[in-house]
Amino acid sequence: MARLVMKFGGTSVAGAERIRNVATRVKREVDAGHEVVVVVSAMAGETNRLVDLCRQIAPLHDAQEYDTVVAAGEQVTVGLVALALHELGVPARSWLGWQVAIRTDGVHGSARIDDIDGAMLIERLKAGQVAVVAGFQGLGPDGRVTTLGRGGSDTSAVALAAALKADRCDIYTDVDGVYTADPRIVTAARKLDRITYEEMLELASLGAKVLQTRSVEMAMNHRVRLQVLSSFEDKPGTLVVDEDEIVEKQIVSGVTYAPDEAKITLLRVADRPGVAAAIFGSLADANVNVDMIVQNTADDGKATDVTFTVSRADLDRALALLESKRAEIGFARLSPDRNVAKVSVVGVGMRSHAGVARTMFQALAGKNINIQVISTSEIKVSVLIAADYTELAVRTLHAAFGLDAA
Amino acid sequence: MARLVMKFGGTSVAGAERIRNVATRVKREVDAGHEVVVVVSAMAGETNRLVDLCRQIAPLHDAQEYDTVVAAGEQVTVGLVALALHELGVPARSWLGWQVAIRTDGVHGSARIDDIDGAMLIERLKAGQVAVVAGFQGLGPDGRVTTLGRGGSDTSAVALAAALKADRCDIYTDVDGVYTADPRIVTAARKLDRITYEEMLELASLGAKVLQTRSVEMAMNHRVRLQVLSSFEDKPGTLVVDEDEIVEKQIVSGVTYAPDEAKITLLRVADRPGVAAAIFGSLADANVNVDMIVQNTADDGKATDVTFTVSRADLDRALALLESKRAEIGFARLSPDRNVAKVSVVGVGMRSHAGVARTMFQALAGKNINIQVISTSEIKVSVLIAADYTELAVRTLHAAFGLDAA
Repeated sequence: MARLVMKFGGTSVAGAERIRNVATRVKREVDAGHEVVVVVSAMAGETNRLVDLCRQIAPLHDAQEYDTVVAAGEQVTVGLVALALHELGVPARSWLGWQVAIRTDGVHGSARIDDIDGAMLIERLKAGQVAVVAGFQGLGPDGRVTTLGRGGSDTSAVALAAALKADRCDIYTDVDGVYTADPRIVTAARKLDRITYEEMLELASLGAKVLQTRSVEMAMNHRVRLQVLSSFEDKPGTLVVDEDEIVEKQIVSGVTYAPDEAKITLLRVADRPGVAAAIFGSLADANVNVDMIVQNTADDGKATDVTFTVSRADLDRALALLESKRAEIGFARLSPDRNVAKVSVVGVGMRSHAGVARTMFQALAGKNINIQVISTSEIKVSVLIAADYTELAVRTLHAAFGLDAA
Repeated sequence: MARLVMKFGGTSVAGAERIRNVATRVKREVDAGHEVVVVVSAMAGETNRLVDLCRQIAPLHDAQEYDTVVAAGEQVTVGLVALALHELGVPARSWLGWQVAIRTDGVHGSARIDDIDGAMLIERLKAGQVAVVAGFQGLGPDGRVTTLGRGGSDTSAVALAAALKADRCDIYTDVDGVYTADPRIVTAARKLDRITYEEMLELASLGAKVLQTRSVEMAMNHRVRLQVLSSFEDKPGTLVVDEDEIVEKQIVSGVTYAPDEAKITLLRVADRPGVAAAIFGSLADANVNVDMIVQNTADDGKATDVTFTVSRADLDRALALLESKRAEIGFARLSPDRNVAKVSVVGVGMRSHAGVARTMFQALAGKNINIQVISTSEIKVSVLIAADYTELAVRTLHAAFGLDAA
């Protein structure tokens, strides 16, 4: 007998038929003798509908009230999933964030979970009742509803798995696991049976949409065994585990890409102390997330060019902001490029293998793909390239690192 | 300075534009120096959508989970109304049933309010903050979300007005007050400036859809001054008050009708003790609400005919149930009639005026309208007639009791 957390995303609960399907999957685990906690998101499209209502009424909405509105989406699905379980004869009860309680900090709209009191849920589980818990929501120190930010239901599931000392946290989604690359681009991509926490974390941050970054971080910190699998097909998914649980290590486990990038170059920036702080400080104040940064010395040695990337959605805001501070920062002009993409290779094997970057650069050069910016960490190498070459680059690297299916 | 409860129904909050309109009305009272509690329903259509989802998944749904699902509707509107108030610069905060807390009994789906702790709300009101409270929902003794049954937001508003000792409870709706008759049928109908609790209670139970019966009962018990007025037009509505506040009393204040009635006659029922209990006991067990009842002795004195009315929606269920108990009850056959309507005249003036029933019967006879069943209380007379004559009967009685506008 094991204790399982099963998390179902928005597409898995979109409509009565799919909710019945979720209940059937849960029943199978219950029938196998397991204790089950189900965590669900709002029905696909529902959170967007609620966010849109907030925006229509108040473009700069108060985060407390926003949280109250959008948390209603998960409230509907927990009740419906519990009803569907009852229909199959499975004892079940729904739990909202404040009922568990899932205690968070007070940062409405992107709260962090501080503490989950699992005693009551454990008691119910032991009595044979399935607990259906609303993802994405918690209870703030002010006694008000908080939400964890988009994709937060993954984090709810992992946090519950940690608090309840679950044997595994299964994330059911619309893909059947983690692939060596996006199968829509690379037909030779293979599903990974296992992946390390560190790799999953890089993949999540680098644009793979399978899991929310924070949920992987939390799983790693609490050593929660995570599995990503399909809610529509009936086969094993990808297990996220400790490095020592992976026997045959690849140098590179996956190739990923982030298509919605934009590049900004500040030309002829005055070469004096404090300039970088002026640029990136004002962007940070405006909540513009800056990713890759490079600085080149200009020919005459008196001024530099500063290049960095932001998400494409933030580009216009970033440009307007920088233009308004041109005198203060001191630069000649701005050169934006909204047609760039970031392509990365990830693998814990890199730690012990030199030459990954060289293989990567050679493979791209072989296809005449120009590298604009490079950034690296211990287990990944990322390059910024013209967006038109994204698919070609991903396919080329997938083959170059021997990831193509036999 | 007064303390006001303002309640807005589903049509008043259906969409961003209408929610802004609600905020504007609230702001006007705040600007006039009043303390304001706003109570809102779910957006029009939303509760039906949620109920329908429950039905699709579980035809006989568990009431606890049903409550969790449907209470989400009001959660959305309180947040949105608070946001709309912020946009107008009015300090506001939303409150869900469990946050106030509005404590109810544990009868999920049609809970009754036991107690409201008003201390926290009063503190906020005194600090100049508008409280936007979710109608229809409460917190059960089991720590779970309860709902008060359809139309329950009126009851939430009145209960809050009583608990907070509000000076008035204004019920904003899509009509601009209580009329002497349905203006869609009687063009000469007049809006009443004032009406007594007792009359309002009869009108509510007799089919006038302006206020939920239980909310009027509660207002009467706690002497809450109620006003019914339009959320779309800007003029005074109808005040529901004590009898001694009405100077010029009419014998009849209004004529109302319930169109969705059905009549069942059990022919040749064995005339022995316990028969009525067998009939109405089994209907009550099946939650079929029986209204008017008459019993006629048949010619031979050995059997009686029993006639009663039920709501048309319950007719088929009631017939099937009775047919299944034919041997037990002992009757020859069932004669149903789904084309009947109940027309009533209501007025506290009846208490001191004889002859109301006679005037009513004469007026109907003058139009050749046959009366099938009669029932009376201290302040109303109801008759059951063929549904085809409903409009004619209402108009005839409205004129006969001198209610037509000059």
